Amino acid sequence: MSTATQTIRTRVAIVGAGPAGLILSHLLADAGIDSVIVDQRTRGDIEQTIRAGILEQGTVDLLTAIDPSSRVHTVGTRHDGIELRFEGEGHRIDFPALVGRSVWLYPQHEVLKDMLALRLRAGQDLRFEVTASRVEGVDTPTPRVFATTAAGDELIIEADFVVGADGSRSVVRPAITGDAFNGHFREYPFAWFGILCEAPESSEELIYSNSDNGFALISQRSHDVQRMYFQCDPETDPTVMSEEEIWETLQSRVPGTTLKEGPIFQRDVLRFRSFVASELRHGRAALVGDAAHTVPPTGAKGMNLAVADVVLLARAVNALLVENDARLIDAYADEALKRIWKAQHFSWWMTSMLHTLPEHTEFDRRRQLGELRSVVDSEAGRTFLAEAYTGWPLA
Amino acid sequence: MSTATQTIRTRVAIVGAGPAGLILSHLLADAGIDSVIVDQRTRGDIEQTIRAGILEQGTVDLLTAIDPSSRVHTVGTRHDGIELRFEGEGHRIDFPALVGRSVWLYPQHEVLKDMLALRLRAGQDLRFEVTASRVEGVDTPTPRVFATTAAGDELIIEADFVVGADGSRSVVRPAITGDAFNGHFREYPFAWFGILCEAPESSEELIYSNSDNGFALISQRSHDVQRMYFQCDPETDPTVMSEEEIWETLQSRVPGTTLKEGPIFQRDVLRFRSFVASELRHGRAALVGDAAHTVPPTGAKGMNLAVADVVLLARAVNALLVENDARLIDAYADEALKRIWKAQHFSWWMTSMLHTLPEHTEFDRRRQLGELRSVVDSEAGRTFLAEAYTGWPLA
Repeated sequence: MSTATQTIRTRVAIVGAGPAGLILSHLLADAGIDSVIVDQRTRGDIEQTIRAGILEQGTVDLLTAIDPSSRVHTVGTRHDGIELRFEGEGHRIDFPALVGRSVWLYPQHEVLKDMLALRLRAGQDLRFEVTASRVEGVDTPTPRVFATTAAGDELIIEADFVVGADGSRSVVRPAITGDAFNGHFREYPFAWFGILCEAPESSEELIYSNSDNGFALISQRSHDVQRMYFQCDPETDPTVMSEEEIWETLQSRVPGTTLKEGPIFQRDVLRFRSFVASELRHGRAALVGDAAHTVPPTGAKGMNLAVADVVLLARAVNALLVENDARLIDAYADEALKRIWKAQHFSWWMTSMLHTLPEHTEFDRRRQLGELRSVVDSEAGRTFLAEAYTGWPLA
Repeated sequence: MSTATQTIRTRVAIVGAGPAGLILSHLLADAGIDSVIVDQRTRGDIEQTIRAGILEQGTVDLLTAIDPSSRVHTVGTRHDGIELRFEGEGHRIDFPALVGRSVWLYPQHEVLKDMLALRLRAGQDLRFEVTASRVEGVDTPTPRVFATTAAGDELIIEADFVVGADGSRSVVRPAITGDAFNGHFREYPFAWFGILCEAPESSEELIYSNSDNGFALISQRSHDVQRMYFQCDPETDPTVMSEEEIWETLQSRVPGTTLKEGPIFQRDVLRFRSFVASELRHGRAALVGDAAHTVPPTGAKGMNLAVADVVLLARAVNALLVENDARLIDAYADEALKRIWKAQHFSWWMTSMLHTLPEHTEFDRRRQLGELRSVVDSEAGRTFLAEAYTGWPLA
């Protein structure tokens, strides 16, 4: 097999066509900055990756600014609250009443379909099935991304700046952190067993339930398809439980609600991990989204945090490349990390407040219920939670 | 040695002349219910026990209702805020602006002096150096306290109701919980090294400082005497450190403030424990204050929680003995426990947010700083903390 090497030139090389990379390319184009995006997946694969489903107010505002006719307003559903359930009672956190903001249920793959169509229509240089392997020269004015096309040819992208938007297994990260695993980790001793089923909604809004049997989350996808989760051992094999056992488990964890059952057509076990890279930027390269950080899903922060990163980074790259002003890019990591660590805390807090742990004593369990009681009893407590859940304002 | 047995009769037998027992006797007397208090200590010992120094708004309101000329308003000092310090910066929690309430710095032994004088002036039957050993008959209408006087005589108090206000080593507790140690415990892997020193205030308000070197609390006693603490190993021998080392340790933990040093005339190591008794009431006996629960000192909740207990219990005992209505006493434990577990949570929260732990990873440390940042950045977060610190309204 003969291979060829092609070198292309752009202002910003973006590795990863997830929400972070796509939205970044839009914001850069708005500022007149060309970019090239490469992703190792096919367009179809990208559009079918089922991920997070909750968009913060600020994320929706940005998607609306990008495309006023965004399907988030027609296909998505605005949620004006969530329910915290414990000791058999539900307590609604009313977002608009508390903070004048809401969240939207709109799955990430729908955002990806929208953004891919939009960027391709705008003429974005967007290359699928191109696998980046490494980044060189981040300390020079022309960093380079080395990649391989589906045909096996080498592709070198020479740019003024490189962005790693390539997820938790980022190949850009080592050029920034010195080592792929340089960063701060936390593992949790449980996972979520998630299902997709054909059934009507059991509840209009999300129910986060802390029960004596463990945590469950009742969420929705559409009028016909529901997404539900329950806390499980991380080693659980998702294929083993019968549908009946799954429904019994879920039902036992939301006392007070009779779940509407239906055929389960997808099951998965989601590991819980927290990670923040040791550095978010080095020279002419930076990390955004999952390449920079992972959060457990309890706080629904994953994609929203990626959007907050790219809003900051687009402005900083613009200042650097257009105005030759390095102040914002020099401040990028510190500024982004403020929000990232608040979001890490929020995700940890929601997780620790809602899950039961094998090592929990009766003291820990009752303290946890005292914590939930403190939050729902207090308008300030509910507001503090609602502010974080609907999202702190974007910079 | 010859001993005699004396049997006395009262409506309510109170074991323990701490703040809980003394305030309870006042509230009962107000309702026309006689009581007898016994305490194994001398009056002088009671008046010299240095303990908590922060009174919630509700506690001060109650002390003022009991005695409008209470010295809490002349000797005590109103504090309208605390400072949370981390990453070298102070952040004030402004209580009146946030919740329209305050706290008072007024040491517990001053409350005890006031209440002892008041109760004795009112003719309260209050017996010092009487050591209760056990309680019998809590399932009958006339429970009895067995005690021994300083002279070695046996004293039996027959009552309609018995209250254990006798601290963490309560002798009343076994009659209620079945076993002295029946309850929910938590130990913490650190303690506070506390000092009293002759020096002017280093700060007008309390500073709770989370530093890379560990926690420190800068507090006050008067214009001439200061109380300061720093996190230490629970096995620390308080006599070993030199004064210079103590000042160096304290100073290194409040970067940004130059502490005003002076001779240290008292040192102690305070263990951190949480405890809630398995039952707070059985038949004709109930527990209040430290006999019912212990909290770590970080949230300044100890004495305030005791006051909240006796407000509830006085009303319940009144309904039981005067109106022959058992509903409030039957609800006493559940009602008291709501506040107790919220206070246990608050104490645990302040503790876990402010202290560094040997097993903390860099992730844990940064998450903790993200938590502090989330609280101080948000008016709702500051309000949630201020509500708990100044005290939830008394029933």
